[in-house]
Amino acid sequence: MNQQILLTPGPTPIPPETLKMESLPIIHHRTREFAELFRESQENLQYVFQTKAKVFVLASSGTGAMECAVANLISPKDKAIVAACGAFGERWVKILTAFGANVVAIRSEWGSAVKPSELEKVLNENPDTKAVFSTHTDTSTAIACDIKGYGALVSKTNAILVVDAISGLGGQELYMDNWNLDVVISASQKGLMAAPGLGFIAVNPKAWKLVLDSKSPRFYWDLRTVEKAFHDGQTPFTPAISLLRSINVSLKAIRKKGIQTIWEETKELANFTKEYGKSLSLKIFPKDPCEVLTSFIVPEGLDGEKIVQTIVDKYNISLAGGQEKLKGKVVRVAHMGFIQKADIEKGMKALAETLAASAVAK
Amino acid sequence: MNQQILLTPGPTPIPPETLKMESLPIIHHRTREFAELFRESQENLQYVFQTKAKVFVLASSGTGAMECAVANLISPKDKAIVAACGAFGERWVKILTAFGANVVAIRSEWGSAVKPSELEKVLNENPDTKAVFSTHTDTSTAIACDIKGYGALVSKTNAILVVDAISGLGGQELYMDNWNLDVVISASQKGLMAAPGLGFIAVNPKAWKLVLDSKSPRFYWDLRTVEKAFHDGQTPFTPAISLLRSINVSLKAIRKKGIQTIWEETKELANFTKEYGKSLSLKIFPKDPCEVLTSFIVPEGLDGEKIVQTIVDKYNISLAGGQEKLKGKVVRVAHMGFIQKADIEKGMKALAETLAASAVAK
Repeated sequence: MNQQILLTPGPTPIPPETLKMESLPIIHHRTREFAELFRESQENLQYVFQTKAKVFVLASSGTGAMECAVANLISPKDKAIVAACGAFGERWVKILTAFGANVVAIRSEWGSAVKPSELEKVLNENPDTKAVFSTHTDTSTAIACDIKGYGALVSKTNAILVVDAISGLGGQELYMDNWNLDVVISASQKGLMAAPGLGFIAVNPKAWKLVLDSKSPRFYWDLRTVEKAFHDGQTPFTPAISLLRSINVSLKAIRKKGIQTIWEETKELANFTKEYGKSLSLKIFPKDPCEVLTSFIVPEGLDGEKIVQTIVDKYNISLAGGQEKLKGKVVRVAHMGFIQKADIEKGMKALAETLAASAVAK
Repeated sequence: MNQQILLTPGPTPIPPETLKMESLPIIHHRTREFAELFRESQENLQYVFQTKAKVFVLASSGTGAMECAVANLISPKDKAIVAACGAFGERWVKILTAFGANVVAIRSEWGSAVKPSELEKVLNENPDTKAVFSTHTDTSTAIACDIKGYGALVSKTNAILVVDAISGLGGQELYMDNWNLDVVISASQKGLMAAPGLGFIAVNPKAWKLVLDSKSPRFYWDLRTVEKAFHDGQTPFTPAISLLRSINVSLKAIRKKGIQTIWEETKELANFTKEYGKSLSLKIFPKDPCEVLTSFIVPEGLDGEKIVQTIVDKYNISLAGGQEKLKGKVVRVAHMGFIQKADIEKGMKALAETLAASAVAK
């Protein structure tokens, strides 16, 4: 069987050189060889995050890294603002609520991002805010939040800014230090071009104070322990060795090409995808679109879920449908990480043919 | 460079057929192909755990699965007994303490296991106990706890029994259902012969009531959400797809050979290792030794850490030294999972030569 073309927003295709590393014989983690891998991957991660802060590596998916952030930064009853622009903004609300935070949610209409002016207003009304949580690019709505704008505001307060960059990192512009982002979270299986199973959390000194103060229960997630082991090039618990060895190859490739070049290339792919959609008279769902994926509105009377399923069955190409309130209403095409222009073209052609056939059938 | 021989208690060597699977092109998890893998691996896991209960798969290391257990089973101030027989028993104490439990620790002398009669006494004194936590085989002391004996006692009470079988599963006898173990935890990188990064937690109906009642904060760990997705052959968050695809090959191999046969083979390797040690006049540290690794006392006046380092440098064979209070005092040789007799023989020969050279140098 031919390999399926993945145009989903994670997991994304993995470069062959990265993939190969997963199948090397396993090494032990309490060794100099692992410590060397740890240090090298750390440098590469700091480059990709554009930060001098430590980037901690977790054996978890991206949501695990989000839970790690909340457990380390927020004590019960602490006030937290969420600038929520889709399903992944709502995920912050859910995790914070589970941890007993006093959550103030700013919800944009799906497809739009929360404006910095809205955040400013709520920040002013809530001077006791401990932390603001938001999303770099929310794949559910295919939008980008104005993280840079939020950073400029939050950095003037005592609060910290925590950014879920799981889907955006390595595709959409992000400067952790220059933009005053205090905590940035990501995962392995999207722009960073590796298999799922690694979570990342970068924490700057302003945020570290909250880590030392947090009263939320944690042991596996406890960044104080993680930080201690970090100094010896280690993790406190057995790391996902094969995944780290593998992703390091992708990180090196990003660094070699230059992250700004990759942002440019991703933007070009986004433009290509959007133009292709326009030529099919497809409307773009978000008003504030991101560059790592595009969400098209499914024409009236057609079922997005069926279209996606037909494209898998007939073309062996995997697009994404809609999530939650957008289920059946949008079709999403990712252009992040190792996704190739030729494959996007095949995906858009399949979408065009399937829409045409569905319209006729109707 | 020749491949290092790993005789450490995790990560252990990975069979080539298992390793190969990690480097297959990634598949998306919201697909029929993944659901099929999920169902097949589930059947294999239930076989290895010897249970009819659901075995939930987490993207985490084994300690993550331990934290998942505590967060789902214990509310703050709940009483929990720990039958602690080494560093991994102490890990239960630490996690439970972090989550605000009222911990009653029964500590055996290191090298001995907590006797069922001791547990019985403490259980009688603490009729309000919610759960008893223990360890199947504690690699720090190389002992086996009498989990079967604990199960017989705890099953007569309202409390549940939670067993960390991270290092023992797939090597040392364990019947989850027949022995009345309510929750069993494991991980991918030891007896189950795959790379680290997957945690497992099997929960029976008696324990499930506590999951529904627990007031501890959790979202990523929340087994209620995990259980909902389970019915569709899914996980709520992106799973570690390549690791699951890979471990399923090892699980199939265990099932094909028969777990009882593997227990027998492991016992034979344990006997071989112990006899070899005796021929070198080495004393075995634990009074209640397990079968998945052996811990030898380092002869008076020699430094176990140096011996282990010398064997790595000179022979490229990785043994384990001692942990915490046993640092420098023991050398540990694992014989779990895919570890081969010929390699154990090389390791023991290297140990013999290194000890002899050290004794002369002294």
